[in-house]
Amino acid sequence: MTDSDDLWPLVLRLRETKPLVQCITNFVSMDVAANVLLAIGASPAMVHDAEEAGEFVGLGGTLSVNIGTPSPRWVESMIAAASAAHARGTPWVLDPVAIGATSYRSRIVEALMPFAPTVIRGNAGEIMAMAGDAEVEVTGPDSSRASSDAHAAARALARRERCTVVVTGAEDIITDGVRTTLLGNGHPLMTKVTALGCSLTAVTAAFLGVCTDAQRAATAATAYFGVCGELAAEGAPGPGTLRVRLLDILHGLDRDSFLSRVRISQES
Amino acid sequence: MTDSDDLWPLVLRLRETKPLVQCITNFVSMDVAANVLLAIGASPAMVHDAEEAGEFVGLGGTLSVNIGTPSPRWVESMIAAASAAHARGTPWVLDPVAIGATSYRSRIVEALMPFAPTVIRGNAGEIMAMAGDAEVEVTGPDSSRASSDAHAAARALARRERCTVVVTGAEDIITDGVRTTLLGNGHPLMTKVTALGCSLTAVTAAFLGVCTDAQRAATAATAYFGVCGELAAEGAPGPGTLRVRLLDILHGLDRDSFLSRVRISQES
Amino acid sequence: MTDSDDLWPLVLRLRETKPLVQCITNFVSMDVAANVLLAIGASPAMVHDAEEAGEFVGLGGTLSVNIGTPSPRWVESMIAAASAAHARGTPWVLDPVAIGATSYRSRIVEALMPFAPTVIRGNAGEIMAMAGDAEVEVTGPDSSRASSDAHAAARALARRERCTVVVTGAEDIITDGVRTTLLGNGHPLMTKVTALGCSLTAVTAAFLGVCTDAQRAATAATAYFGVCGELAAEGAPGPGTLRVRLLDILHGLDRDSFLSRVRISQES
Repeated sequence: MTDSDDLWPLVLRLRETKPLVQCITNFVSMDVAANVLLAIGASPAMVHDAEEAGEFVGLGGTLSVNIGTPSPRWVESMIAAASAAHARGTPWVLDPVAIGATSYRSRIVEALMPFAPTVIRGNAGEIMAMAGDAEVEVTGPDSSRASSDAHAAARALARRERCTVVVTGAEDIITDGVRTTLLGNGHPLMTKVTALGCSLTAVTAAFLGVCTDAQRAATAATAYFGVCGELAAEGAPGPGTLRVRLLDILHGLDRDSFLSRVRISQES
Repeated sequence: MTDSDDLWPLVLRLRETKPLVQCITNFVSMDVAANVLLAIGASPAMVHDAEEAGEFVGLGGTLSVNIGTPSPRWVESMIAAASAAHARGTPWVLDPVAIGATSYRSRIVEALMPFAPTVIRGNAGEIMAMAGDAEVEVTGPDSSRASSDAHAAARALARRERCTVVVTGAEDIITDGVRTTLLGNGHPLMTKVTALGCSLTAVTAAFLGVCTDAQRAATAATAYFGVCGELAAEGAPGPGTLRVRLLDILHGLDRDSFLSRVRISQES
Repeated sequence: MTDSDDLWPLVLRLRETKPLVQCITNFVSMDVAANVLLAIGASPAMVHDAEEAGEFVGLGGTLSVNIGTPSPRWVESMIAAASAAHARGTPWVLDPVAIGATSYRSRIVEALMPFAPTVIRGNAGEIMAMAGDAEVEVTGPDSSRASSDAHAAARALARRERCTVVVTGAEDIITDGVRTTLLGNGHPLMTKVTALGCSLTAVTAAFLGVCTDAQRAATAATAYFGVCGELAAEGAPGPGTLRVRLLDILHGLDRDSFLSRVRISQES
């Protein structure tokens, strides 16, 4: 079981060891994801072209792959990097943004799954689409479904793909098919800032750089990001201020503030 | 005639219905345009590759096409999306960034015009170049001409292309060739934040999702953005703060603040 | 010799003349670099595709080339623009981001060097890699080496390539192989905001638009950026606030604040 005492040591280890995180991510999230990674203490490297994406995996970082703004050349790179990660045993995270919205996105994810992502992170609609729920309607990066609808889908997907699945929403679900942790942090105003989900995907890859237990690493990432987002949103006049404060808080949050805020429970 | 009482209901309708807006936009504007759309209550989808750009138009959103950082693959996508929008009757907005600066940009716009944009938005230099004024010098995204120089060009372009034309600057002009509305909001410091014009183009596409009268929708978009920008700039120590406050204000502005600020007039 | 009295007039000249700066830069830096250029008073143009990058050089701006997120099509454009700049005598700056991390980046820089960059700006690891120090380990955009290690490498590179070399870090080195200026401004928190180095590269190109002495222009750029960054960092709760304040301060810093802060010395 992962409980809150297991999480803070990972935040500290991350700040101390500055893990390298290679990101192949969408254009919208480039700036904020890199800033979020720097703020938590990681070392981001946005290295994505097929000319170097596979080679870069050999430098020892973890990998974050996000399909938010795909094109054929980028998909080639995603496959090269995921394939290299799989071959080397490098942990990697897949963010299947808006899967189901177009047939192209489904084909991309199909091409990536043989390389066995360590963690898959999405909103309820994306995870339900990946689990094979044909009734989910996806029309973009914003989910039409509540995260609580996705419990069964998340566990089924985790078991089928032998990975950890993270569903973010009002309630976050982190499951490896056996252990399922629920988190209740975050704030609705976070949905009014673009690419925070994409940023959490990259943060999850950073925590995989300091913890080999993927379910625990993903729980720590989601809890830390959720607590910081909640604190950033409280009293913020709007999404502009939220984003600025989020980066400040990710950089400097202390142990007591984290532990007094985190709302964690286990699902049996 | 569009007057200020016609505008606020559209702001409210947008917040309530969260219209989907597909953006094919330049790399510089990706982050801020998506954040601006979320702040006003719309649902942005940065979906641009030719593999899916046309298909995505079928999901029911409106479309924003911005040529700020063009390349052949992206132009292919712009054409696919604009063509799909034209075929389906989907409203779409064209932002001819820096047209006239290079021959490539002129060729791109020429390729897009047969698909009949619902609205064209640019600065004075861009609109004058599109209207065929050979004496305009364009060397980049910043206009060398005052918006007041562009009245005749805007009306001529609107009539010729049977669309609504928006010229932004110290004074904004919104015309469909018959009705011409002038707006006097905004602030000079807004020109020191990148991609706010591009963001307004996307905001205009969002308002087209809640109002079929394009001249009225474009007026509402321009007025709302101008008022919020003006409020964000007042007392701001510089462009960094302006941008943060703009997102906050776009998210939360109330009716009275809007109506007491908007400076609107009709040109006969 | 360049001393502090030589620098402020260049800041003023830049604000007055709004030099055009063409940027071929990485995706991560697009937003912040454009905003930084606008804040200091320059006119940024992110024009990068091979269809227009060379032609655009003819419009009279200076050029900034940054290899942070390279791909074959972009490299083609970098070569077209650098070649046009070389042919016309247009000053240009090269930022060899993470050179040495992959073989691809070394090949790109090798292809660009025949076009004789006016200034090369990097961190210690990058400049040492360019000078031919085979023992430098580069695993991403963050340097593993202190800037003080790079004195000899910077001078050797400047002499070999007949250009000005800027090494940024705790101490900044600006040398043309004969004159070497040291700057002691900046703040460690600046390393927690992405793409500030890339932004300084673009700022250097802007100063080249108002000063033909490249060593002096690069010194002014680095000093102004360092002083503003230092002021932005002091008292900032974290990197989010630092970035916002940096843009505000770049826009409005006055002469006395600059001159009382700048720490400049010459190396004999």
